[in-house]
Amino acid sequence: MRIALLGLGSMGAPMAANLARSDHDLTVWNRTRSKADALDGAVVAGSPAEAAASADVVLTMLSDDAAVEAVVFGGDGVLAGMPRGAAHASMSTISPALSRRLGAAHRDHGQRYVAAPVFGRPDAAAKGLLWVVASGAPDAIDACRAAFDAVAQGVIVAGSEPEQATVMKLAGNFMLASAIEAMAEAYALVRRHGIDSALFHETMASRLFRSPIYENYGGMIEAGRFEPAGFALTHGLKDIRYTLRASDEADAPMPFAGVLRDRLTSAVARGWGASDWAALGRVAAADAGGDVGSS
Amino acid sequence: MRIALLGLGSMGAPMAANLARSDHDLTVWNRTRSKADALDGAVVAGSPAEAAASADVVLTMLSDDAAVEAVVFGGDGVLAGMPRGAAHASMSTISPALSRRLGAAHRDHGQRYVAAPVFGRPDAAAKGLLWVVASGAPDAIDACRAAFDAVAQGVIVAGSEPEQATVMKLAGNFMLASAIEAMAEAYALVRRHGIDSALFHETMASRLFRSPIYENYGGMIEAGRFEPAGFALTHGLKDIRYTLRASDEADAPMPFAGVLRDRLTSAVARGWGASDWAALGRVAAADAGGDVGSS
Amino acid sequence: MRIALLGLGSMGAPMAANLARSDHDLTVWNRTRSKADALDGAVVAGSPAEAAASADVVLTMLSDDAAVEAVVFGGDGVLAGMPRGAAHASMSTISPALSRRLGAAHRDHGQRYVAAPVFGRPDAAAKGLLWVVASGAPDAIDACRAAFDAVAQGVIVAGSEPEQATVMKLAGNFMLASAIEAMAEAYALVRRHGIDSALFHETMASRLFRSPIYENYGGMIEAGRFEPAGFALTHGLKDIRYTLRASDEADAPMPFAGVLRDRLTSAVARGWGASDWAALGRVAAADAGGDVGSS
Amino acid sequence: MRIALLGLGSMGAPMAANLARSDHDLTVWNRTRSKADALDGAVVAGSPAEAAASADVVLTMLSDDAAVEAVVFGGDGVLAGMPRGAAHASMSTISPALSRRLGAAHRDHGQRYVAAPVFGRPDAAAKGLLWVVASGAPDAIDACRAAFDAVAQGVIVAGSEPEQATVMKLAGNFMLASAIEAMAEAYALVRRHGIDSALFHETMASRLFRSPIYENYGGMIEAGRFEPAGFALTHGLKDIRYTLRASDEADAPMPFAGVLRDRLTSAVARGWGASDWAALGRVAAADAGGDVGSS
Repeated sequence: MRIALLGLGSMGAPMAANLARSDHDLTVWNRTRSKADALDGAVVAGSPAEAAASADVVLTMLSDDAAVEAVVFGGDGVLAGMPRGAAHASMSTISPALSRRLGAAHRDHGQRYVAAPVFGRPDAAAKGLLWVVASGAPDAIDACRAAFDAVAQGVIVAGSEPEQATVMKLAGNFMLASAIEAMAEAYALVRRHGIDSALFHETMASRLFRSPIYENYGGMIEAGRFEPAGFALTHGLKDIRYTLRASDEADAPMPFAGVLRDRLTSAVARGWGASDWAALGRVAAADAGGDVGSS
Repeated sequence: MRIALLGLGSMGAPMAANLARSDHDLTVWNRTRSKADALDGAVVAGSPAEAAASADVVLTMLSDDAAVEAVVFGGDGVLAGMPRGAAHASMSTISPALSRRLGAAHRDHGQRYVAAPVFGRPDAAAKGLLWVVASGAPDAIDACRAAFDAVAQGVIVAGSEPEQATVMKLAGNFMLASAIEAMAEAYALVRRHGIDSALFHETMASRLFRSPIYENYGGMIEAGRFEPAGFALTHGLKDIRYTLRASDEADAPMPFAGVLRDRLTSAVARGWGASDWAALGRVAAADAGGDVGSS
Repeated sequence: MRIALLGLGSMGAPMAANLARSDHDLTVWNRTRSKADALDGAVVAGSPAEAAASADVVLTMLSDDAAVEAVVFGGDGVLAGMPRGAAHASMSTISPALSRRLGAAHRDHGQRYVAAPVFGRPDAAAKGLLWVVASGAPDAIDACRAAFDAVAQGVIVAGSEPEQATVMKLAGNFMLASAIEAMAEAYALVRRHGIDSALFHETMASRLFRSPIYENYGGMIEAGRFEPAGFALTHGLKDIRYTLRASDEADAPMPFAGVLRDRLTSAVARGWGASDWAALGRVAAADAGGDVGSS
Repeated sequence: MRIALLGLGSMGAPMAANLARSDHDLTVWNRTRSKADALDGAVVAGSPAEAAASADVVLTMLSDDAAVEAVVFGGDGVLAGMPRGAAHASMSTISPALSRRLGAAHRDHGQRYVAAPVFGRPDAAAKGLLWVVASGAPDAIDACRAAFDAVAQGVIVAGSEPEQATVMKLAGNFMLASAIEAMAEAYALVRRHGIDSALFHETMASRLFRSPIYENYGGMIEAGRFEPAGFALTHGLKDIRYTLRASDEADAPMPFAGVLRDRLTSAVARGWGASDWAALGRVAAADAGGDVGSS
């Protein structure tokens, strides 16, 4: 199968490496071309349209709505370049409104669209252990399966509407962010009561929750180590903003999401946007009057 | 060893059964005496003081500060009845201020005090699989170890100050409540976007968090089944109130705890206080305009 | 001067009446034409472009971003119809991003743009007692002054950037909504403590705050009377959403705005969106378990 | 009439001066005696009991629950010293639970109790322009009226239960704090959008709200001037904590109160507790990444 992958950032690059090792023909495009040239086993295209032109499946893995809009709707964009009948799987975490708009635009062009965000951080991408959450027409999802299999351990079908996979991914990230904020507040509390936070962390992660998520993020908060970022706080803030829009569309209040927006926003305002989003722990410590060290 | 256990509620009763099966001599007391009479292998005392009079270790497992105050400081109370040198392990989840007060009062009476709240629900208590979080003087904790071993799978020592175990337990319950609220909001969101909430639940619990906590509570929220209560919502609200007091003492802001207070309070105001605290899921659904069914 | 007014809703209609009574030549357009035909002293245009074609100043008073986008950027829209050098004063409460986009688009077409939202409810509009908050190039603001004078008691110049008047208006509405929510919570609290809420209202409005805002909204909350709406709750929610976007752009956390979003969203979900935004009082009463009567 | 006034802090001192100028016989007591000795026209007592012993009406104006408990219930306290039939008017802002406890204790001693907190800052106290909010038995309130008249411009009767005046006062302070926080967030927002905050302040205070509260506090936030404190932030935090307890008792959620607790707590943690509670403006600026200057 001919696959195009657009976007070679921290997630896209390891996905590209897995695709390059597969049986598929891979074409890649990246805004900064040098990253594409560095990749073995792939043809490098000069524009999104060129990359899409000869593909059965176009995968995009970009940072936010603006990047996806530029690559899809812009001049020399995916929409203009993709053959009729080909499928575009948008694997970025975007807003539900943009996913709907992508679905409609591709349909108008006789193309197929699958919303296909993923769960997993760069290390999971490197091992091909992502989970794809997909929504769209069944035939469109089927068309993308071989591509998904090359980068993920499984596909979860969220529904037939283009925004459903998007909402499911956002809801999952919201739950992750909530777990991080809860740890941030709790670890700050116990520390200020003179309790050994490493002991508290071990009790929570290994005894109570028994979850790799609590193990991983709690460990970062406990150690106060938020760099280098596995998932940048600015990306987390973007996802919470999209979550709030999903909540707006559904008339579903989400008070925890409101708190997360404020705490992440304050983190960015204080200069911690490039840290891992576990740096919510730094916000909680700072708001409790703690010394937050250098950032 | 001679052990007295005061309080035979949903947690105290299975603990008493385990103690009765052990080598220790057990005396029990309960406000409603019939529950005590029903227990095999234990002497039933007529008052807290009488139960405490011949004990090496007094365990109390009561519902809240008011109950502990009545049983310890009241006429015919533990404080008056306990021998000098004996140890009182308060296993209830109480406020840090009361734990400090208990520590001081017992010291003034030549007695020992251990704050010893537990993690685990009634089914864990029945199997002797609780975790005890203990703080206090090392010799006092040592004096209680044999009693703890009869009801728990392990003891986690939080420190030497009487409020430290209390704060650690409250911080843990706060993290549990935060996970429940996050699920409540997320499940309401995906459902209103037409996504299969059972699929979302499975993805979160089994793929992303891989945690029995998310498995258990998410399952209740997904099914909308909150009765009978494993842990009553009113108890959860009490714990969040105590958490906020711990936060007040430490000057540590806890915005998630504030949200939890409001949502749990509203649940009580709407008549759902006797449901499991997973009924935060009912609050989220109701606030999003959903039909919450009968309660 | 030749003035076009587009949008004859609850605010636009009384403004049109004042303009019709002035010396200016007035052309009006409304999506539902019958409202325009009912107005004496004005020419009725068949499209936004036609209304704008012969105007020195085009005023738009519409409900939200989507309405403004349709009327300005759509086919037969203001942008296409307005003469070079004419000025468009957007008096609707819109998002800062749209105001910036309008500024850029008009500049590209050789036209002038003023962001000019107003403070005041329909009764103030009827009496010509609005306050216009304007931002844009000084010459553009000057070009609109005569039109503003016909509908308002004064013009407050917020700056030269197109989004500044928008932000100032949103910040003001946020402060109004915050006052309403504070009253909603406080009145529910005192009522549940058996205190006469009319006495409390009088004390707050006349003794402590001495403000017509507290007098007006507090009176509605005290009486539980939210219909007919002076300012519909759905509009208030829209404004808080735009406020949050202004906050996002500025990296300025706004926890009260987050709470307002949730409470207003829940009000809409429960079917109270057409009520006055003082119906935040109904949300507070309902969340406290109160009977909220028919809506 | 023989009046005793206990507590000569920033509020009690000007009240004492007004009482000393009246026809009544005044006895005063203060923890730090030098403040009492400095007052002309009053007898200085050596203990609360001594001050209360010969009084028809005992007024207490102290900082919080702990201070009131010490002065009333302690050795040589008011309860022990007051004659049967005399009335104690507690003018401090205390928790509803303590007000109930005071009512019961005085009744048990054959004494009368009035909850009588006041609205007004020290400058209003100096001019005798306070408002007393009173609750209790009508005959008890009547017994205190002459004393109230000497320090206040009026008495508002909140009900016959001892906690009702307390709740009404707390609800009022909650509304004040909410107005301050709303201004703090809004002023930070407009400033970060490059808008002149003095212009915004004038528009809000003089045009929209037309309220001395917005004039006063908004002016402090606009100028960033929070010292010396008219009302210390730590006192404001105490009042919000008591408000939350009143909310707990009534099962009435108060999300704004939760936010206020966090922001005031963070202010204390950052070292701004001695500033005026308008320093919520400093918290909002700091959380938005602003330079907050020296504190």
